[in-house]
Amino acid sequence: MALKKKPVTGMKDMLPREMQIRDYVIRLIKETYGTFGFSSIETPCVEHIENLSSKQGGENEKLIFKILKRGEKLKLDTAECEADLVDGGLRYDLTVPLSRYYSNNVSELPSPFKALQMGNVWRADRPQRGRFRQFMQCDIDILGEPNNLAEIELILATTTLLGKLDFKNFTVRINDRKILKAMAAYSGFEEKDYDDVFIILDKMDKIGLDGVEKELQEHGYPKEAVEKYLQLFKEITNDIEGVRYCKEKLEGYLEEATADGLEMIIASVDSVKEADFKLSFDPTLVRGMSYYTGTIFEIAMDEFGGSVGGGGRYDEMIGKFTGQPTPACGFSIGFERIVMLLLERGYEIPDNKEKLALLIEKGMPQEKMLEVLAFAKEQRAVGKQVMLSIMKKNKKFQKEQLSQEGYTEIKEFFK
Amino acid sequence: MALKKKPVTGMKDMLPREMQIRDYVIRLIKETYGTFGFSSIETPCVEHIENLSSKQGGENEKLIFKILKRGEKLKLDTAECEADLVDGGLRYDLTVPLSRYYSNNVSELPSPFKALQMGNVWRADRPQRGRFRQFMQCDIDILGEPNNLAEIELILATTTLLGKLDFKNFTVRINDRKILKAMAAYSGFEEKDYDDVFIILDKMDKIGLDGVEKELQEHGYPKEAVEKYLQLFKEITNDIEGVRYCKEKLEGYLEEATADGLEMIIASVDSVKEADFKLSFDPTLVRGMSYYTGTIFEIAMDEFGGSVGGGGRYDEMIGKFTGQPTPACGFSIGFERIVMLLLERGYEIPDNKEKLALLIEKGMPQEKMLEVLAFAKEQRAVGKQVMLSIMKKNKKFQKEQLSQEGYTEIKEFFK
Repeated sequence: MALKKKPVTGMKDMLPREMQIRDYVIRLIKETYGTFGFSSIETPCVEHIENLSSKQGGENEKLIFKILKRGEKLKLDTAECEADLVDGGLRYDLTVPLSRYYSNNVSELPSPFKALQMGNVWRADRPQRGRFRQFMQCDIDILGEPNNLAEIELILATTTLLGKLDFKNFTVRINDRKILKAMAAYSGFEEKDYDDVFIILDKMDKIGLDGVEKELQEHGYPKEAVEKYLQLFKEITNDIEGVRYCKEKLEGYLEEATADGLEMIIASVDSVKEADFKLSFDPTLVRGMSYYTGTIFEIAMDEFGGSVGGGGRYDEMIGKFTGQPTPACGFSIGFERIVMLLLERGYEIPDNKEKLALLIEKGMPQEKMLEVLAFAKEQRAVGKQVMLSIMKKNKKFQKEQLSQEGYTEIKEFFK
Repeated sequence: MALKKKPVTGMKDMLPREMQIRDYVIRLIKETYGTFGFSSIETPCVEHIENLSSKQGGENEKLIFKILKRGEKLKLDTAECEADLVDGGLRYDLTVPLSRYYSNNVSELPSPFKALQMGNVWRADRPQRGRFRQFMQCDIDILGEPNNLAEIELILATTTLLGKLDFKNFTVRINDRKILKAMAAYSGFEEKDYDDVFIILDKMDKIGLDGVEKELQEHGYPKEAVEKYLQLFKEITNDIEGVRYCKEKLEGYLEEATADGLEMIIASVDSVKEADFKLSFDPTLVRGMSYYTGTIFEIAMDEFGGSVGGGGRYDEMIGKFTGQPTPACGFSIGFERIVMLLLERGYEIPDNKEKLALLIEKGMPQEKMLEVLAFAKEQRAVGKQVMLSIMKKNKKFQKEQLSQEGYTEIKEFFK
């Protein structure tokens, strides 16, 4: 039977050129996050279907690749619904598995625990350009650290990495869910409406201040509240001054510690940052995931329309699973987007490895062959990449191909 | 709802200690195989169920994790059999996906193509000690190279890697399917019985020469054939002399080129090998997979009962899928077994990275905090691994923990 040649819908084969970039970025991530004390961990790609359907994943739970029960557990004839047939699924993110991992292994892990996870996740999204159904996620999380040292370290580690990949002039937007709420409360919105208000606020990027005002009014929120709310956004600046303004203006609605913490984070990162980027206080930053409880952040790059990473504090999630309240904060970078940007700009890996091709005439006698092999061994031992090939009839074409692959030095051996 | 804490049956969470070894071995594999000119590639973990059920996978096809169709394609109420419900599965090896990959991308790949694949595969095997349902495979394959330069390079690359991991005194057993067949033919077995004879021969390790003789007799094969067959194994030595003996003795049953090729491989590897191992001609080596067409090899290590890697030539497999005959030869190492052996022997990663922990008293004022952060930045920039932690009440215990994690240098900062 003929094989289906294409990969399954929405997934892709990685060609050598892309893999070179991926491998390089992976190496750099492990190295850079390593200097910050993050430890690599891994969880299985398959998770219990119950864990994946626990309402932590929001919309992603609709996109699960589900796995059929096996052997005697599979009772096809009596199955009435999906749940009778399925016992696992491919993970759709790395955060739910991290929570399971932490609760399963907490006794063997240091506290706080700084975890680095790189792994594929799967979502049965509608396929579209640049978006795949299998993609690599790269998360760093600090579990058990309530202090905002966690935020500082996460932002420094992530931006140091991006700097090493020659990304410049990007912005890390930061906000705090508590500021979001205080601003809504101060303006006079009712608590039950907060989430809807934030959904509209989240469109600021696209529809602007006027658009947000219009939508809020259309939703029938009190005119006074809408005006007061909008005025705030006009007055708050995107820097430490903006944070201080919030602290003063929102007195009674916002704990001082929240504003002080944010100020501390911004001042610290600004003072010691390695990469060329701006840490910008952005009171319009919402981030969809409802599990965030404190700081939230997102990386914006002009080259790329949307976000290339983000994260925040989720102090309640792990506790929900384990029963043990555990402060947690994480930062995820968009690995696939970063690789795409690097590929698009023709990124050259800083790789000094010399590439040498040895062409061997067919029918080379044993003795001479051993000489060639010994030469190859010698060159490899000093770190060169050596390609041994049998000489082809069309040697010119063969040499062209090899030089395209980066083999700039080519030696020929005749029998 | 409480989360299920354990990983799904038969799969495992990777703790930091194991991950360090895994990451190190992966890095070493990419680096070592890189110097031999192998290019990393990757295929999706999910494959078309048709490709996985194409009879190339033998017993593994019974162990597939199958994936439910999604959305409108899933018609639970009218489904009568599994095939109505399933459209994909998790790959059980990397060879079937490689064949698909090669046929899908051949126009963009060099010829011959030297591929390195590292990736997880899944088999719903009965769980047992040291065997998992998700495990990493690591394959190198040379596609489009009929010359036994392929075998030489595969064996040299694999053994060089094992040498770098401090494995010594191991054996690479080599044989050729054509020699297996010639020996059976010479002895007088019928062609239809070859596979059954080889299944018995494959037990030589466990039941010895007498055991094999007994089983062959019990199967009712002609006494004369059995005796002639056994006599061969007594006479053939495990070296080049053994190959030469076969060439002479099996004249008329074995092509001279087969024996000459094997001699060439053994002589070449012996002459230039890097690691401390023995390449041993072993006429009893069978290897189960029926797709092998020529040379076959396997790594035996005393420390580990069974094989820690193997491979061979499969010149017909890719052609079956693509219609284009393509010579192919591959060598797979047992990544999980190697990691297990390294863990068991307490392998220390050759890693000169200094580890420094900075303990910060709680409530550190902004100014002093910036000094600590600046110091950490400086130390990280020169490659040190720096852990920033808030000082705990039980500082003694905290410091003990940190030194257990390898932070030999600990500095304290007070407010």
